[in-house]
Amino acid sequence: MKKVGIIMGSDSDLPVVEKAFSVLDELGVPYEVHVYSAHRTPDAAADFAMTARGNGFGVLIAAAGKAAHLAGALAARSTLPIIGIPVKSSTLDGLDALLSTVQMPAGMPVATVAIDGAANAALLAAQMIAIEDAQLAARLDQMRAAAAQKVLAKNAELSAKYSRA
Amino acid sequence: MKKVGIIMGSDSDLPVVEKAFSVLDELGVPYEVHVYSAHRTPDAAADFAMTARGNGFGVLIAAAGKAAHLAGALAARSTLPIIGIPVKSSTLDGLDALLSTVQMPAGMPVATVAIDGAANAALLAAQMIAIEDAQLAARLDQMRAAAAQKVLAKNAELSAKYSRA
Amino acid sequence: MKKVGIIMGSDSDLPVVEKAFSVLDELGVPYEVHVYSAHRTPDAAADFAMTARGNGFGVLIAAAGKAAHLAGALAARSTLPIIGIPVKSSTLDGLDALLSTVQMPAGMPVATVAIDGAANAALLAAQMIAIEDAQLAARLDQMRAAAAQKVLAKNAELSAKYSRA
Amino acid sequence: MKKVGIIMGSDSDLPVVEKAFSVLDELGVPYEVHVYSAHRTPDAAADFAMTARGNGFGVLIAAAGKAAHLAGALAARSTLPIIGIPVKSSTLDGLDALLSTVQMPAGMPVATVAIDGAANAALLAAQMIAIEDAQLAARLDQMRAAAAQKVLAKNAELSAKYSRA
Amino acid sequence: MKKVGIIMGSDSDLPVVEKAFSVLDELGVPYEVHVYSAHRTPDAAADFAMTARGNGFGVLIAAAGKAAHLAGALAARSTLPIIGIPVKSSTLDGLDALLSTVQMPAGMPVATVAIDGAANAALLAAQMIAIEDAQLAARLDQMRAAAAQKVLAKNAELSAKYSRA
Amino acid sequence: MKKVGIIMGSDSDLPVVEKAFSVLDELGVPYEVHVYSAHRTPDAAADFAMTARGNGFGVLIAAAGKAAHLAGALAARSTLPIIGIPVKSSTLDGLDALLSTVQMPAGMPVATVAIDGAANAALLAAQMIAIEDAQLAARLDQMRAAAAQKVLAKNAELSAKYSRA
Amino acid sequence: MKKVGIIMGSDSDLPVVEKAFSVLDELGVPYEVHVYSAHRTPDAAADFAMTARGNGFGVLIAAAGKAAHLAGALAARSTLPIIGIPVKSSTLDGLDALLSTVQMPAGMPVATVAIDGAANAALLAAQMIAIEDAQLAARLDQMRAAAAQKVLAKNAELSAKYSRA
Amino acid sequence: MKKVGIIMGSDSDLPVVEKAFSVLDELGVPYEVHVYSAHRTPDAAADFAMTARGNGFGVLIAAAGKAAHLAGALAARSTLPIIGIPVKSSTLDGLDALLSTVQMPAGMPVATVAIDGAANAALLAAQMIAIEDAQLAARLDQMRAAAAQKVLAKNAELSAKYSRA
Repeated sequence: MKKVGIIMGSDSDLPVVEKAFSVLDELGVPYEVHVYSAHRTPDAAADFAMTARGNGFGVLIAAAGKAAHLAGALAARSTLPIIGIPVKSSTLDGLDALLSTVQMPAGMPVATVAIDGAANAALLAAQMIAIEDAQLAARLDQMRAAAAQKVLAKNAELSAKYSRA
Repeated sequence: MKKVGIIMGSDSDLPVVEKAFSVLDELGVPYEVHVYSAHRTPDAAADFAMTARGNGFGVLIAAAGKAAHLAGALAARSTLPIIGIPVKSSTLDGLDALLSTVQMPAGMPVATVAIDGAANAALLAAQMIAIEDAQLAARLDQMRAAAAQKVLAKNAELSAKYSRA
Repeated sequence: MKKVGIIMGSDSDLPVVEKAFSVLDELGVPYEVHVYSAHRTPDAAADFAMTARGNGFGVLIAAAGKAAHLAGALAARSTLPIIGIPVKSSTLDGLDALLSTVQMPAGMPVATVAIDGAANAALLAAQMIAIEDAQLAARLDQMRAAAAQKVLAKNAELSAKYSRA
Repeated sequence: MKKVGIIMGSDSDLPVVEKAFSVLDELGVPYEVHVYSAHRTPDAAADFAMTARGNGFGVLIAAAGKAAHLAGALAARSTLPIIGIPVKSSTLDGLDALLSTVQMPAGMPVATVAIDGAANAALLAAQMIAIEDAQLAARLDQMRAAAAQKVLAKNAELSAKYSRA
Repeated sequence: MKKVGIIMGSDSDLPVVEKAFSVLDELGVPYEVHVYSAHRTPDAAADFAMTARGNGFGVLIAAAGKAAHLAGALAARSTLPIIGIPVKSSTLDGLDALLSTVQMPAGMPVATVAIDGAANAALLAAQMIAIEDAQLAARLDQMRAAAAQKVLAKNAELSAKYSRA
Repeated sequence: MKKVGIIMGSDSDLPVVEKAFSVLDELGVPYEVHVYSAHRTPDAAADFAMTARGNGFGVLIAAAGKAAHLAGALAARSTLPIIGIPVKSSTLDGLDALLSTVQMPAGMPVATVAIDGAANAALLAAQMIAIEDAQLAARLDQMRAAAAQKVLAKNAELSAKYSRA
Repeated sequence: MKKVGIIMGSDSDLPVVEKAFSVLDELGVPYEVHVYSAHRTPDAAADFAMTARGNGFGVLIAAAGKAAHLAGALAARSTLPIIGIPVKSSTLDGLDALLSTVQMPAGMPVATVAIDGAANAALLAAQMIAIEDAQLAARLDQMRAAAAQKVLAKNAELSAKYSRA
Repeated sequence: MKKVGIIMGSDSDLPVVEKAFSVLDELGVPYEVHVYSAHRTPDAAADFAMTARGNGFGVLIAAAGKAAHLAGALAARSTLPIIGIPVKSSTLDGLDALLSTVQMPAGMPVATVAIDGAANAALLAAQMIAIEDAQLAARLDQMRAAAAQKVLAKNAELSAKYSRA
């Protein structure tokens, strides 16, 4: 199976990013984790992106805050699909990272998920790989069915407890 | 090759969405175009999404404005990757559509592109299909090389014309 | 009397939503509480909405955060009045939920209240039912008169304590 | 049938508000139109609201721009349900009117619709009256079915014209 | 001397508003403190404003949060200058209150100060009264001179401690 | 009567500012108009402010766009009440000017009116002068009564034309 | 004299950027103009930045819209001071470009000017070069004195024409 | 070497500003620290700026919150490059200070860094001085190389720990 590359711009993003790991673990999707900064290590980031397809990666996930350029910098160096996670930083509630990640110019898409949406980034990466992998698609469907069951169980519990009809 | 489904919430979104058609034409990626509203035709939208994988679709693109729920509604009914295009509507410059598209809850990712970013949505869809299609990946690389050449030609022209060194 | 349906998108919304319960209790309006997600349990949400009028509901209240689609999803399946409570989530102070709830397309209104405004959602539901229920209208008026008295009492207290005329 | 009161804060709001008239005409819901300013004619606005229930109104719709206080001023004087239409003014794209309308304090709900959402305000008013009027509810359902048919017709047309599968 | 009326929309605004008291105390400007809600006690608020000039008030200060209508409601009932303090509430950082206070329609000005700017509201009220009161103007000038001295003292301290020239 | 000083940061602000002239003309309040930039002519602006009280001014109005510092610069040099008009510039719809004008630090109030709110700035200035001028207060009341009559006339006209009760 | 490098991300930015040319012409500061995209020509952009100091550049100016990464990409490759011009694009009024340009992570400053502020970018570049060039500093001072004279001339004209003291 | 002037509008800004001191210490750049308020001590601020070039300063850094006028006030009095640090204050997450600092009118640039970006302000000041100081430029390059090494070390550590390929 193609691997997922998970790149964070700073190790301080780890508490947000690590939510992606368990999702991929649960789905059985292999992944590599890296810390590359678009600004502090631009060559390392570029090299990683340029060789990613050849090295067996199918999708890259980039997480960064503030003027979040990492996903765009990877997108500039690879035609693999790039998923961007805007990370909430100390000010502006992540709006800066969201706009810096999603408002990409024509020709360079970044598949942006919600602010701090690392779990969804992992799911989206798996969905991409599952386009040609029926077994993975089936596991994604099962994961959803389980999530639906949890909601319905909560519904039964809260409806019984709080309704006054 | 897997098809791309392009769904717009209203035919008034066509001027934005049609920029996706030429990109897919140029890349040789087949696509189907539909108008389904998450609110006015929820069953049709749901049916389309639930049968999409079986009907040969690999990726779905959804374009909608204001409280843009279409991409999320499709995401709720399929584990195919869903790309969301927030469409700028009459007020708020598309910020409403952007937040309604990208801020999805855990478990239901939408791969969001820039406001009115239909061309990038098409490219992103092609990139997803190209994960397992080396020829399409090569065409994506060629398209980029051509875009780079255009920039460099403009650089030569403007640098010669405007520099005063 | 027609019932009020209170639906939250996740049981994590309960601390916000439960402020609606006591308001309806005080007014003697019956209600049912449910957890249905527009994304994780779209069929259950749709079924609930489609049968709501027949099952004795007069108004539905939907509470959700982030890209808050729940109220709109119910609105797509019922012509009962739908009240939307945008729930403040971890980022953006609830602005995402507000815009996702209120900026509905033509044909599908959602009666939106303030961010986290569950008490007002309950009052608004009661006001709707009271259109044809003079006794309930009278209880709403009494509740207001009591609230006004509280303000006037506070005025007397603080005016005496802090004025330096 | 209970009447709908439609109040605009200034006659300059008429181009936005008049979209509500045809919706109510089509549904056969009677309405009165008024121009009352919360600031320039506070007594007239208050008198209208205080006597509205007794004068046969079931719902009030208030449209105003900028620091849009009209809906709240009516809400302060009546326990009828009040629907607020935030009107886009010359600056800030209507965000000021949206926040001034929707962010009401506890005890005083305003059922807020989208910026310039007069058609939806009329629909919402009709939905409230239809809680106890099965014929009006049926007309609302028919209006929706017709809107769905229009979407499906557009889908057939655009799908045939633009798909390249 | 004319009195300053300080009205808060809720006693929960007291921690913000009380910063105005000490400023007026220091300047020797008399003031009355009241709690009147534009929504819960509209008549009391209106009566207060309509009789304020006759009762010896020269300026009114209104503090309110969320859809902050109080200053506007007073402005609608008096041609005394009205100062508005937008109060930061639980969400949106006070932006809702700021826009609801400052974006008043033509004919009804509200002199708006910063979010939670109660001290400045008091100073502004004193400045208005000082237009025709040279002694109060002199006290305002002295207060400023003292504030300038504090800054210069801090400058001497920090410059000596931190400079590395 | 004390004069009103109207200062604009650039002559390009004149189309916004001139709405203040006719209001003051109608009320019989004398005024001087000036162009002083906080940045391009800081000394002229400071000199004007420092001598304003002695030169017979009672209130100063400052209009500026973008990072609108003019009102604050005058406030730093005079304890006269300063009214700030945030002017909408080419981008950001005047939000930059609004925040730059209203969010003044403690000790330096600026009485901020709506974006481009020059007419209200003039009214507010007149209200301040009218604190000690009963005749001017009476003219302000008359102006309001006339405005109310216009609204009521429009109400009669539109109510008759559009109501379908 | 050190040269100024002016780089725009797309030739569509030229109408904004060219305002910088005349400022530098007037000040006698040499400059080179280039079109390099951070995304479409990342190597060309990086090569230019890495060799800029050696090639006689003293300052670089980068102009880009939307998710404006160009200034940051240059900053990652050079310790020359980098000035960023956020360009207003079709949506969001340039707020996306502003945040993408200014909110740089620690270690990688971009000297950001106002949205579309190309003239100021040129002035700022000249100011940096003038740190060690007294003649250029004198020309900057003269340019300012001329601008001040224009304001004072406008003041004389408008004050005479519009004052009614 | 030319000195850097670091001016804060209030000593309460010290916790933000002091991050600049260690950066300049590490780079061996001399600096003076001052507390001058654009509003409370306008003359002291103006005098400092007007004499700064003559007193050996090459760059000024100004830090202020809310309606942050300090950088602009210094820019109005000196053609030295002025760096502005928008300081996050109690509300609005620093957006007010950012817009007040960066949106300067033509002719008066402020080199704005990120909200609370004091370390970057110091680096930017050093970069400006290094235009004509090759040794300082070399130290800036070394500081960057060290930062890159830290990222690469973190990459090795986290990649080994978290990858599941």
